[in-house]
Amino acid sequence: MSETTLSLTELRAQIRSRAWTTLTSGVAKGFVQGNLVMLPKSHAFEFLLFCTRNPKPCPILDVLEPGMVEPSIAPGADLRTDLPRYRIYRNGVLTEEVEDVTAYCNGEMVSFLLGCSFSFERALLEAGLPIRNMEEGKNVSMYITNRACVAAGPFHTPMVVSMRPMTSGQAVRAAQITTRFERTHGAPIHWGDPEILGIRNLDEPDFGDAVTLHPGEIPVFWACGVTSALAATSAALPLVITHAPGHMFISDLRDEEMTLF
Amino acid sequence: MSETTLSLTELRAQIRSRAWTTLTSGVAKGFVQGNLVMLPKSHAFEFLLFCTRNPKPCPILDVLEPGMVEPSIAPGADLRTDLPRYRIYRNGVLTEEVEDVTAYCNGEMVSFLLGCSFSFERALLEAGLPIRNMEEGKNVSMYITNRACVAAGPFHTPMVVSMRPMTSGQAVRAAQITTRFERTHGAPIHWGDPEILGIRNLDEPDFGDAVTLHPGEIPVFWACGVTSALAATSAALPLVITHAPGHMFISDLRDEEMTLF
Repeated sequence: MSETTLSLTELRAQIRSRAWTTLTSGVAKGFVQGNLVMLPKSHAFEFLLFCTRNPKPCPILDVLEPGMVEPSIAPGADLRTDLPRYRIYRNGVLTEEVEDVTAYCNGEMVSFLLGCSFSFERALLEAGLPIRNMEEGKNVSMYITNRACVAAGPFHTPMVVSMRPMTSGQAVRAAQITTRFERTHGAPIHWGDPEILGIRNLDEPDFGDAVTLHPGEIPVFWACGVTSALAATSAALPLVITHAPGHMFISDLRDEEMTLF
Repeated sequence: MSETTLSLTELRAQIRSRAWTTLTSGVAKGFVQGNLVMLPKSHAFEFLLFCTRNPKPCPILDVLEPGMVEPSIAPGADLRTDLPRYRIYRNGVLTEEVEDVTAYCNGEMVSFLLGCSFSFERALLEAGLPIRNMEEGKNVSMYITNRACVAAGPFHTPMVVSMRPMTSGQAVRAAQITTRFERTHGAPIHWGDPEILGIRNLDEPDFGDAVTLHPGEIPVFWACGVTSALAATSAALPLVITHAPGHMFISDLRDEEMTLF
């Protein structure tokens, strides 16, 4: 335990010192990674309400009081410096990508950490299920659906889903396994015909990369944390900060600590 | 379905017209009942944060925007009139019990509905497990523990638990069954020695009634929704409204719709 904790602290120290500025996928295996959203406290209640109303795409790992930057799920960490890359949105528009957001943060900003499907992917692999994008060295395929999230105040967005191809038997097994991971997206929301989600062409994902469907496979769709960034930027607030895609926050929580049973 | 919906609407209409002003336990079997907390929007973020950080005692069923009184889980209902009895707290002190809170509500008040263990009791009974307080015609035994909830802003309280006596084999079965009911307190937090929770004497519950433990039985403890009322009144706000104990809000949600799997 102390060795692992040391290596997590060490990893975050490397990120903080800008010795590490790249993607976090596959890093610190077995530990929960989180999506980050920071926004002004004037809208913190309504954004927390949005997450509460949409727990499948936006499962809450940690929410900090205004101005606080040390999450309870990673004592000693600093959310302003301990992610490899951030995105800055002004009035809902992406204006810059930076490696440190200290200059943007003040006592008004509230930080939200939301679950990520990395947590259940390891469990799928251990059960012998395929994760095609890993096999092909790509990012997971993500699509904007026709399903509206439940709005809260000014926050509204269609749900974003991630997709992994499987046989229908494998999909059932994947549903069983990911049910345990309720706090990191849980069971799939749909499998089979993509048109039902309003997805016209699996080869043209809205985020990430297209992957191969083998004969006999169907697409299996999970609610995706990217939804939280679309929601946060939907309100055209003066300032919203998110992690840059794939550059997540690495917590001290083990994936297995987050499961329901 | 339409008959049942009619009877729920009819029941709430009776409550609204003050034809029904008594306890709701055992009423509208199979439908989710909720704890109510209303407090000023100035503290809505911090109270929602408290519930988010303490999901076992304070599982969120519904949270409404400021001034709104029609919950999404019961279209047509009005939270100001559709509970049989309410408690009014000023500066954290209980000042009155009333049957209608319309006069107390304004655009500043935010309503929270939180899950209640009534939802899993039916599933326990159907599995042949004992609910001693029902057998003895009493209210469930509730105790204030030595376990501090995670605070949020000014909201802080020890966790309150409900207790049901069972054999240890029955307790395991009860843990399995209530795991499915994560949004209505979920699995027990403890069973066996009450001293571990700081409970000196099972015969002197802090709320509800004492019940009989038969030879070979152990006390089984679940997180309890009464925690939310203690938390809401811990901050000494100018006005907090809760349901009166046992006089819950009856929603249109079926207990089985709230389960995880």
